[in-house]
Amino acid sequence: MSPTLPTFEAIRQAAERLRGKAIRTALLRHDILDERAGGPVFIKPECLQHVGAFKFRGAFNALAKLDPEVRQHGVVAYSSGNHAQGVAAAARHFGVAATIVMPSDAPSVKIEGVQRLGGIIEFYDRETQSREEMAREIAALRRAPIIPAFDHSDIIAGQGTAGLEICEDLEAMGLKADLFACCVGGGGLVAGCGLAFNALSPKTEIWAVEPEGFDDHIRSLAAGERVKNLRTSGSICDALMAPMPGEMTFALNRHQLTGGVAISDEEAMAAMAFAFHHFKIVLEPGGAAALAAVLAEKLDTKNKTTVVMASGGNVDPAIFSKALGFGRAHYDEEDVDV
Amino acid sequence: MSPTLPTFEAIRQAAERLRGKAIRTALLRHDILDERAGGPVFIKPECLQHVGAFKFRGAFNALAKLDPEVRQHGVVAYSSGNHAQGVAAAARHFGVAATIVMPSDAPSVKIEGVQRLGGIIEFYDRETQSREEMAREIAALRRAPIIPAFDHSDIIAGQGTAGLEICEDLEAMGLKADLFACCVGGGGLVAGCGLAFNALSPKTEIWAVEPEGFDDHIRSLAAGERVKNLRTSGSICDALMAPMPGEMTFALNRHQLTGGVAISDEEAMAAMAFAFHHFKIVLEPGGAAALAAVLAEKLDTKNKTTVVMASGGNVDPAIFSKALGFGRAHYDEEDVDV
Repeated sequence: MSPTLPTFEAIRQAAERLRGKAIRTALLRHDILDERAGGPVFIKPECLQHVGAFKFRGAFNALAKLDPEVRQHGVVAYSSGNHAQGVAAAARHFGVAATIVMPSDAPSVKIEGVQRLGGIIEFYDRETQSREEMAREIAALRRAPIIPAFDHSDIIAGQGTAGLEICEDLEAMGLKADLFACCVGGGGLVAGCGLAFNALSPKTEIWAVEPEGFDDHIRSLAAGERVKNLRTSGSICDALMAPMPGEMTFALNRHQLTGGVAISDEEAMAAMAFAFHHFKIVLEPGGAAALAAVLAEKLDTKNKTTVVMASGGNVDPAIFSKALGFGRAHYDEEDVDV
Repeated sequence: MSPTLPTFEAIRQAAERLRGKAIRTALLRHDILDERAGGPVFIKPECLQHVGAFKFRGAFNALAKLDPEVRQHGVVAYSSGNHAQGVAAAARHFGVAATIVMPSDAPSVKIEGVQRLGGIIEFYDRETQSREEMAREIAALRRAPIIPAFDHSDIIAGQGTAGLEICEDLEAMGLKADLFACCVGGGGLVAGCGLAFNALSPKTEIWAVEPEGFDDHIRSLAAGERVKNLRTSGSICDALMAPMPGEMTFALNRHQLTGGVAISDEEAMAAMAFAFHHFKIVLEPGGAAALAAVLAEKLDTKNKTTVVMASGGNVDPAIFSKALGFGRAHYDEEDVDV
């Protein structure tokens, strides 16, 4: 695992590794969104990716790059959400064990997801135990590497393959993106995609979209250094509640990002309903954040070609039905997906 | 408009016309479905197509083939559902008027869909008026051609491009389908796809999936001639309630189909929930019928490579939430989508 920042070349190599392994999700477009935005808008539907989120890309790339001698000991990760499933799926592909440190109160749908993929779950108590410490102990015991959720060059390079595909697919249509809107938790996805845009379409504006109250990237950009979120829970966007930007991701994002905007829970849910009605895709709240920013006119998309990342679709049916106007939401405010 | 049966060459030509116009929907796959089926299963997610259903393919192909002199008078169609929106979208592309004859009690979501695409709606009363007669009158008055929903060679060839893409995408993975399961209303989609499979993968079994009580193809295959459904309403699969097989579609399907199976409303809803949970796609009940047949083990998929058509996703949020276990369904039992 290299400690240096990834380059565009690392994304190209990751794309080779992922060929035929990840789903090459096709860009979607709908007149009604173009009209709302005042220009063409393409959606990159990573909810259709394996494990229902882009996280498979980075996890697979990281595991593929491991020395087979090392990899045979299995891998360790901590995450209560999409990264957990991405690592479990990648480990399954390579026929090695994945141990995932998850909170004992993680949503059952995510626990089952990891178990179904053959992942070994080690539960920790949020009140009394440190997941990082627990993961380090397990990793030392098994001589197995830890696969971080975002702050790692192989993870960032893997996520960046989504950006590479966007650039290639637009190019095939004779287009370039003027604006790319991407949800941000730890910042790995937007960092990797930003690298791809910088290389292939350097004029594209890169915008971070964060949930209100979890605007650590927006505030870190303003401060010129990494600052923490003031809150640790309380957004419906469970996948976007990382406590602060990563060291590596921020080193890239501080130069690559044009800026950031924040969206509310209600705006995220309205975007989920919009995606249901017009795009027929299932988005989780965090996965709908970038679309929400466009629909709520928080980004200047007029007369621009815009690409919106729709990063994942792992959502509880109750929350989804609530977004559609039915049912009640029972989401766990403590559930941070990093 | 040619009265002869379409050939595989017509599908190739339709694919050229649709290039860059229709979305080339990428096959989806999930381990959990493979495990349930006992072999690899690929989903063709035509819910992600323009207008949320495969119907755009046939409508666009039919309009593209019209003499521009004829096309400038606009086109006429009768449909309460997906075909209406497909014709309206294609007409909009060519900058001509689309008049759609719809029942006065059509679901508002479908009326709005056609209006949003610029379609002109002429309402008829189901009790006292014939939509076919009304469409003929409007067509004569405007000297505009009628675009049928399924029983037309250009429509069948257009829908067949979905089958062509399936064969091409499997070939790129070094695979051939052993079994193709496709929902059937009027039979245009399975007829066109069947042509593609016959040409490129002649050993593939082609199975029709129909709603219980609307098994006109299954009974027609048994009878050796076209027979009508005994019912005209009462399935949740509103898109699959055509009264009987088309003349042209049955001429193809009687030779191309291996057989047919019927699924219940409950099985369709369970498949919708399965697609939500694992594939993150929105399917309408009829669009989930083929998946339902696999999940309910009505087809022998064991040790076979199976392709499942997921034909559309135009579903009322209430029905969708009901499938997920929330909300009540308020569907209109009279709503036949042909």
